[in-house]
Amino acid sequence: MDFSAFIDKMATRSGEAIMPYFRSSLAADDKSSGGVFDPVTEADRASEAIMRDMILQEFPDHGIVGEEFGDHNPGASHVWVLDPIDGTKAFISGLPTWGTLIGLKRDGTPLHGMMHQPFTGERFSGTGEAAKLVTHNVERILRTRACADLSSATLMTTSPLLLTEFEHAAYRRVEERVRLPRYGCDCYAYCVLAAGHVDLVIEAGLKPYDIVALIPIIEGAGGIVTSWTGGPAHEGGTVIASGDRRIHDAALRLLDA
Amino acid sequence: MDFSAFIDKMATRSGEAIMPYFRSSLAADDKSSGGVFDPVTEADRASEAIMRDMILQEFPDHGIVGEEFGDHNPGASHVWVLDPIDGTKAFISGLPTWGTLIGLKRDGTPLHGMMHQPFTGERFSGTGEAAKLVTHNVERILRTRACADLSSATLMTTSPLLLTEFEHAAYRRVEERVRLPRYGCDCYAYCVLAAGHVDLVIEAGLKPYDIVALIPIIEGAGGIVTSWTGGPAHEGGTVIASGDRRIHDAALRLLDA
Repeated sequence: MDFSAFIDKMATRSGEAIMPYFRSSLAADDKSSGGVFDPVTEADRASEAIMRDMILQEFPDHGIVGEEFGDHNPGASHVWVLDPIDGTKAFISGLPTWGTLIGLKRDGTPLHGMMHQPFTGERFSGTGEAAKLVTHNVERILRTRACADLSSATLMTTSPLLLTEFEHAAYRRVEERVRLPRYGCDCYAYCVLAAGHVDLVIEAGLKPYDIVALIPIIEGAGGIVTSWTGGPAHEGGTVIASGDRRIHDAALRLLDA
Repeated sequence: MDFSAFIDKMATRSGEAIMPYFRSSLAADDKSSGGVFDPVTEADRASEAIMRDMILQEFPDHGIVGEEFGDHNPGASHVWVLDPIDGTKAFISGLPTWGTLIGLKRDGTPLHGMMHQPFTGERFSGTGEAAKLVTHNVERILRTRACADLSSATLMTTSPLLLTEFEHAAYRRVEERVRLPRYGCDCYAYCVLAAGHVDLVIEAGLKPYDIVALIPIIEGAGGIVTSWTGGPAHEGGTVIASGDRRIHDAALRLLDA
């Protein structure tokens, strides 16, 4: 089965569902019970509904884990992991740094992943063995860049405001050592890491659907992605991605200090 | 004189000069004398050189203030204020949230401004009286949105790490009151404010070329932009932009508290 072609079709359909809502005036519900602002949009729901329909029709025995509509048959050997709009806050702020995440796990291991940015027309995808960026039919192989030492690294995180006090202290130990720390960008940060433009992404509090689709892209580009304790990242929680093993190990030591 | 058509031509030529460098591997010089990382790229210089040539040829008696090549005849009645790549750190990180800023002052007052994002194909422009966004030949009028109270506002700043301790304390007094604070985005933040997607942008340490081109866009969309003390913003320094006078006044009171 050529899952890549199917994922491409899902991305196209999902992008068509989302784009009419981007930069339109829309009311963002607040699905969180007070506290952190967590917007949900019609676009989110429309996109996930379409992708779920396509999967159910094409692969009725596959499972689905999605941000908006919960789990369906999550114990299946093949499970799709969907986040229709990763970076909803960027989306409602009119910024182009959100993306649609489409991941496929086989027997628990991320096998295929795509980050689709329908406004810029970018499709970052990977299989764990290889990764590419296709922008308006122009294809480019993704490779992370070498980075021997934290002192020459660019580090990204979506926002320090999303970290607990304990996590922030650990994050700060790395931030203080790097050359250039940058905030913002959600899934986009992992994709520019895969493309060799930044060296580290460190986040916490992720859900599986925030990271599963990105793992085959990062690893396919030669990068490393684990939890802050060096374990697998696909369950979410704390996540660190690096383009070079040397700074990954150095950052893990600081996070654990 | 139709300055708008000339600005459009400058944007096109400048974008052609910049794009070959975007997401290519390029060494970023460090023009700062230690301390904060301040990258300069060949793209920056190539773009500004082209825009300066165009101005000198078309308007030999106009002045030019540019980020890369300094001042030329800055006492002229018409002075162009150029920042070829505002958001150089975003640029070298492969992110699409940088832009080319082209401003024109007459007798010291910003008269025309454009923010051009050649990767996404967006041109935000304004005259102080009106503002528009043209994306791939589709034109849209820009209007800021109403926001009666800070508690429902989205606030952006490029990075709290760019603020002094004193500025950060003032900034935090506003941040603690808003609904959604977001980091990142340089000039792009002011443009999504003009487009009615965010409500406030608060920054400090800006140069004139970081803000002059954005003033006619923000004001043309119905927004307000001043220093943190309510004075004119076109000399740079501390800057606050708002889509609605009510939250502008509320934020000024907190910044000055």
